[in-house]
Formats: sequence, C-alpha cells, structure tokens
Amino acid sequence: MLKKELDEEATKRLKNIAGKWYDQISSATIPYISLPTRTKKNIEYDENSEVWKYGNRETVRSASSAKSALHLLKMAHVVGFLKNQIADNRSSTLREMYYISEGWKRAKFSAQDESNMLVEDLEIITELSREAFHLRPEEDGAAIYGPLRIKEQTRRGEKIIHCQEDVGEAGYPIPNNVNNLELIDHDAKFVIAMETGGMYARLMENGFDEEHNAVLVHLKGQPARSTRRVLKRLNSELGLPVVIFTDGDPWSYRIFASIAYGSIKAAHMSEILATPGAQFIGVQPSDISNYDLPADKLTEGDIAALKAELTDPRFDTEYWRKEINLQLKLGLKSEQQAFASRGLDFVTKDYLPDRLSEMGVI
Amino acid sequence: MLKKELDEEATKRLKNIAGKWYDQISSATIPYISLPTRTKKNIEYDENSEVWKYGNRETVRSASSAKSALHLLKMAHVVGFLKNQIADNRSSTLREMYYISEGWKRAKFSAQDESNMLVEDLEIITELSREAFHLRPEEDGAAIYGPLRIKEQTRRGEKIIHCQEDVGEAGYPIPNNVNNLELIDHDAKFVIAMETGGMYARLMENGFDEEHNAVLVHLKGQPARSTRRVLKRLNSELGLPVVIFTDGDPWSYRIFASIAYGSIKAAHMSEILATPGAQFIGVQPSDISNYDLPADKLTEGDIAALKAELTDPRFDTEYWRKEINLQLKLGLKSEQQAFASRGLDFVTKDYLPDRLSEMGVI
Repeated sequence: MLKKELDEEATKRLKNIAGKWYDQISSATIPYISLPTRTKKNIEYDENSEVWKYGNRETVRSASSAKSALHLLKMAHVVGFLKNQIADNRSSTLREMYYISEGWKRAKFSAQDESNMLVEDLEIITELSREAFHLRPEEDGAAIYGPLRIKEQTRRGEKIIHCQEDVGEAGYPIPNNVNNLELIDHDAKFVIAMETGGMYARLMENGFDEEHNAVLVHLKGQPARSTRRVLKRLNSELGLPVVIFTDGDPWSYRIFASIAYGSIKAAHMSEILATPGAQFIGVQPSDISNYDLPADKLTEGDIAALKAELTDPRFDTEYWRKEINLQLKLGLKSEQQAFASRGLDFVTKDYLPDRLSEMGVI
Repeated sequence: MLKKELDEEATKRLKNIAGKWYDQISSATIPYISLPTRTKKNIEYDENSEVWKYGNRETVRSASSAKSALHLLKMAHVVGFLKNQIADNRSSTLREMYYISEGWKRAKFSAQDESNMLVEDLEIITELSREAFHLRPEEDGAAIYGPLRIKEQTRRGEKIIHCQEDVGEAGYPIPNNVNNLELIDHDAKFVIAMETGGMYARLMENGFDEEHNAVLVHLKGQPARSTRRVLKRLNSELGLPVVIFTDGDPWSYRIFASIAYGSIKAAHMSEILATPGAQFIGVQPSDISNYDLPADKLTEGDIAALKAELTDPRFDTEYWRKEINLQLKLGLKSEQQAFASRGLDFVTKDYLPDRLSEMGVI
C-alpha cells in the first residue's frame, strides 16, 4: 500500500472506533470495546497462514465501570492524538506519546506499560500495525548487505539505494518504519539472516554474498519488528528463501521461532511479522558433535529452556525433538563463531554451502 | 594515515615485539615484556592531551616463571596470527581469534577475557589500536545523519557517501573500523550526539540538522569505540564543536564522561578515543526543575552512582558538583524524551537552541 493510501486507511479505522462509540451512545448503549483475550491459552495455530494467532475468546471493556470508562477515555485521547499525527505527517515514539499524555489530565497514563498495551489493543482492533499510525519503535532495525535495490520514502524525498553498491561495509540500515520501503529489484537467490555482527562481517569479508547471490541480514540478537517485517517481505514479495543462522543454544532457537512463527506478545501481528517458510540452518546440536566444535557446558537455565522448548508447539517437529534431545544428551552449546576453530574460511567454504544444498536452497 | 601505511606500521611494530625477544635471548637475557600497571591507581590526568592515561608504574612479565613463559608463548602466537592476517588483508573478531587459538596447543586461551586482555596489552605495547591489526569489534557503530560527506574504503572499492543525500532515514552506519573512513567535506556548524534512537529520530523529523547545519549522531547507549573515534575525528579534524545529549541520570553522565575523558578500561586508548572538548548539553538536573519535566524518583542505585561521581575526578568541576548536588536534593531523574510533555517541537524549537546559544555553540 502506498503511504498516502495507508494514511487514509489508518485514519478511517481510527475514526471507526470513535464512530462505534457514537452509535452505541445514540442507541442508548453504554459504550464499550471488545477484544480477543490476550493470554497464552487464547493462542491458536492458524493452518492457512501457518502462524500463531489469537483464538475466539473475547474480553469486553464497557464504560459501565469507572475503571473501564477511564480506559475508554484514554483510548479516545490516543485515537485523537494519532489521527492528528497522521494528518500533520508527524511521528512519535511510544515513549513520547506516554509523556504527551501528561497534558490529558485524568487520561494521563500511569506507566509506560499501560500506554504500550493500549497501542497493542488499537493494533488488534484496527488490524493495522502501530507504524501505520506513525508510531516509531525505539529499537533499531538490522542491517542488510546484498544484491538488492530498495526505494525508501524519506522526509527528504525518495532515495534509491543498492544494498551492495551504494553502502559502506556496515550495510544498509533498515529504517524503523518499513511501510516506507519498496523492494525494487534484486539479483539474489536467498536470504541469510545472522544473529551476530561477527558472523555478518565474516560472510561479507569472505564475499559470500557475491559468490552465492545472497542477501545478508544482521539480526542484532532478538530481531526488531522492522527486521522481521523485512524478512517476511523478502520472502513473500520476492519469493526468496530465508535461512536463519544463530548460535547453538536454546535462546537462539527462540530467535528463529520468533521469525518463523511469531511471538505470543505480538500474536495479533503474526501475519505481517512472521515468515513461516524461514528455515533454521544452524548451529545445530548435531553440528557440535559432527564438527567437534569448541563448546561450553549447558547451564541449568539452558537445560530448563531446552526442556520448555520440547513442550512448545513451535518446536513440535521431528527435527527439533531430535536436535534438542541430542543437545540435552551432549550437555553442550556452541556459538556460530566457533567455526573459526577450523579456520576463517570454513564457515563460508564448507559448512554453509553443505547445509544450503542439504536444505535444497542452493 | 592511509590503509597501506597503517598496515606496514602495524606489521613493523608487531615484528618489533618478536625482535626484542630475539635480542634478549641473543644477549642471554630471559625474554620479558614490560607494561604499565593497569589499575585505577595508575591512572593520571594528562594536562597536555586533557585525557586520563596510565602513569609510570610498570609490571614486568618474564619467561623465568612457567606462568609468564606461557603468557609470552600466547603473545607470540597472537603476534604471528595478526601479522599474517594483515599480510593477507583479512580481519577477524576477538571472538574468532579466541576460537582460532584452539589450534595453538598449550598456547590455547582458557577464556575470552584472557585473549581480550592480551590484545589490550598489545595495544599498549605498540601504541596502536586493535583495529590497526584488523581485529574487528563485535559491537556496532552508531548512525550519522547530517551535512557531511565521507569516503569509506570497503572491500568492494571506495564509496563516497553524503550523510543526508545518499542515505535513508536510519542514516549512515559507522563501520567498525574507522581507519577506513575519510571525512571529505561538510557544511556543518556542530555535532550533536544523542543517547536514544527516539531523540535522534525526533531531531531528524523536525529538520534540526537542516535548520542548524548540525551533524546528528545516534550513540545507541554507551557508545562503541568506533563511534567515539568518529566523534573525536569530527572534533579534531574538522574543528566541529561536539555536544552530548543524554537522559538526566547518573548512568547517562557516564556516557558523556567516557566520550569526553575516556575510560579506565581503555586509558591507553584515550588519546584516540576521547574528545576532551565535548560539552554536555543535557538533560541537566536543573532542567528537571526549570522545565518541570516529568520525572522518576532516584533509586538507591542512582543515589550511590551520583555520590560516586562526586568523588570521580572526571566530574570534579563547579558545574558538575552543583548539578549533581541539585539532583540529589531533588531526588529525581528525567529522560530526554520527557521534553515531549511540552509538545513534539519543544526540544528542537526551544530547549536545544537556548542551550546551544548559552554554551556559545550557535
């Protein structure tokens, strides 16, 4: 959707919320909102979209109680603020909006959590992401390096940038609102997203992007929303396979799961944030034994996290059960940079090509 | 220094270390190295360079004990590895080097700390930064947005990039080795470095860089080495004043101090990492009362940190004593985004211009 259309759509949906309240009052109904219940129990796997979404349980907030009336008052303030912000072509962070509520008297937020939650409610009601309301995340997007040309609509005009030719070694940094981003053309075969900056720089230095026509993405740990949205779009708009390369420990497997299946916290956004086709390339527990990688002992926390993953529906596949059980048996974890023990080229000349052809990507 | 010259110089200084051992052995002396003692007691203020450096105390490590002999053996391996890495025009992270030591038998590092410390020793001995040996930091540099044109020598050739015209809204990301960066030309009056991404985006959205010919730098919390080096170079090479804009709490004042005066951990690098002329713009404790900013109560940890700063030589000025004592009296701290309580334009239309003219920058 173009920015102008998205702005109009977002404004329409915000006004709809107020419109419903107006109609409720007109027909002598106490105004209310209803929302899916946001608990772990109300998360279901959606076969069609292959992601985890909220189920059918609903919570109703009616102005018949003082507490809920105050909640609706705050929502009304936020809806008004966002509508004006879109009209003025301004943007703000969640933190700024929290401070702006200082001027809303009784509707002032008492904590950042409260305003964050309210914005998530609006996302669910409108079925739009907060970025559509010009709410900027604080967190930075990741970096991209590879044979891809993008067009970014910035406040200083359109910029067309080739993510190899027009950027420095740190790559093209993903802006926090990827609605302003167009993927123009590319010469890529697949996308490889990496957990650490060390590995991102290693692939770049070794020319892996050129040799394999790969788009390198640096996740910077648990990826920001904008990064997950770009991965999703590279996959769905350009049809590029996406593989995820992380450390070999339970926390890193969760990075993969949040990319591939979405998270409970943002289950309402799964369809735009998750990339169900994303594949895990490694570090696999079996790599630790097969390649005799330098490894550290699993901590008690690691073991508990691995066991929790064995009961997590997102890891309920033969592949993950086998790998996680193997890791528990080995009692070891390894980092992606541990491949350096076999020389700086091993990861790009041997490990990744082998895994990619095993997975059918190259 | 050009890359080629720096490579030659780094190689020469690495060989010098081995050369000294050779001479020691030739003259029947047990080989040793001597280094400044790296403790808080051996840090002194250097009037000339206006930064904190190591004093005259020395520690000698001689191969006459098994432990020190092993240390010299590890250093010899590292010197050899780095010399080859420079010759091959490769680079690696500290983490990769740690894993590479797996192949060094008895000289294998037992922990990452040990190899990090050894690299810092080499920095002190050679008076060069680790980047000169092609050791890449894991941590990312910050982003720059403003009227500045740079030239980056990348593995894919030279890239000339204007940090407003040729970049997206996320700016130009500073590469992890700023030795490869040349500051070509600019149309800037000063540099403003900000702690949070929210404030960086605020100044950009409000056109602060255009209105005041300012170079915006996003520090991303405690700034990486590459970010501090770029601030230093913007100040010393281009003669631009540098102002630091952080939250109003003791941890943020330390961000300022590490930029302006350097840190104990990297006292040997102060001359290339510190910007003694950098000025603190805010959030000042006096701003909290003057502007009636939304504020949080100081925690016990905050109070202890403020008291520690009162005895820290880096904060031993009339300005800081007054501000820190005021903050202890108020019992409050504020974030930079708290200015949003006065509207999204207040910070760029009122606060910053007032402070900048007070400070004599504009």
